[in-house]
Amino acid sequence: LLVDALRRAGIDALGTREPGGAPGAEEIRRLLVEGDPQRWDAVGEALLMVAARRSHLRHTIWPALDAGTWVVCDRFADSTLAYQGYAGGVDRADLAMLHRIIAGDFAPDLTIILDLPVALGLARAKARAGAETRFERKPRAFHEKLRHGFLDIAKREPGRCVVIDGAGEVETVHRAVLTVIRERLNLPL
Amino acid sequence: LLVDALRRAGIDALGTREPGGAPGAEEIRRLLVEGDPQRWDAVGEALLMVAARRSHLRHTIWPALDAGTWVVCDRFADSTLAYQGYAGGVDRADLAMLHRIIAGDFAPDLTIILDLPVALGLARAKARAGAETRFERKPRAFHEKLRHGFLDIAKREPGRCVVIDGAGEVETVHRAVLTVIRERLNLPL
Repeated sequence: LLVDALRRAGIDALGTREPGGAPGAEEIRRLLVEGDPQRWDAVGEALLMVAARRSHLRHTIWPALDAGTWVVCDRFADSTLAYQGYAGGVDRADLAMLHRIIAGDFAPDLTIILDLPVALGLARAKARAGAETRFERKPRAFHEKLRHGFLDIAKREPGRCVVIDGAGEVETVHRAVLTVIRERLNLPL
Repeated sequence: LLVDALRRAGIDALGTREPGGAPGAEEIRRLLVEGDPQRWDAVGEALLMVAARRSHLRHTIWPALDAGTWVVCDRFADSTLAYQGYAGGVDRADLAMLHRIIAGDFAPDLTIILDLPVALGLARAKARAGAETRFERKPRAFHEKLRHGFLDIAKREPGRCVVIDGAGEVETVHRAVLTVIRERLNLPL
């Protein structure tokens, strides 16, 4: 939806998502989202996530940005910090270091966090086409820590992050996202 | 051969190898050793290697050591330092940090480096059953840096590493390895 809106405003935009977004990264994604929840510990997950992100940056994101294309990415480094750090217990300084190794000081210009109560988020994930992933099968307490993590990241970096209420209908949330982008990035959306 | 020799000396020993050595790690191995040499850059390789090592440590090496079993591993952290650091150009301090994240201060008691000229090593790899792997297809200069890297690691850590001439016949090299183990670990081999 967002990529379409950008394109209608005359902006060359690419939609992508993590983990994945490049051929090597998609193979790592399969290792991450399928199978037994105990298969990787949080440290192993973090390493696979940043390995996939490195591939995604090199083969998809950086070439697009170099070509003047806007990149809209569903999940990025904050998700690693929330999932493997806040919820998974990996030292957050270690995660920051991993990000520095793969990306230097590269960061998104704007990060939008769609916030909603854990029960509603899990119900929506369950209702989506396709099976629940390995992460959605993790216990409720994990998802509460996750939500707290994202909100804390947003509080620590208010210049980059905006939290939007994600509990409403798709159309309502979409309009709220467009409003934020219009205001933050000064775009005619 | 070495595991058999240890067992004949009455030592409970497990032979394993990297990348791989545990189910998750073996899946990462397939991503690493198959396909186009340009598929991952050295940073991506390093992350996949340490992710695989984390799985190998958690599921194979640490449980075996906890049970009193000796572990003989074909390649370990020094190979990451040599391949992705010395030969691949990843900052060696970053690689040390990655090792600290996955393994703390865990290190082998003894590391044996079989040294041989690059041309001979590549010829042997080519003659082995199975195709050349992604790493063996890298250019000659890469393998020269690799050899220098392993020898430099051995020079920096003489208490842990021993370099053995690997150019001779299997039986000759095997006897040299047993001699080193007997002397360093005080074993009746």
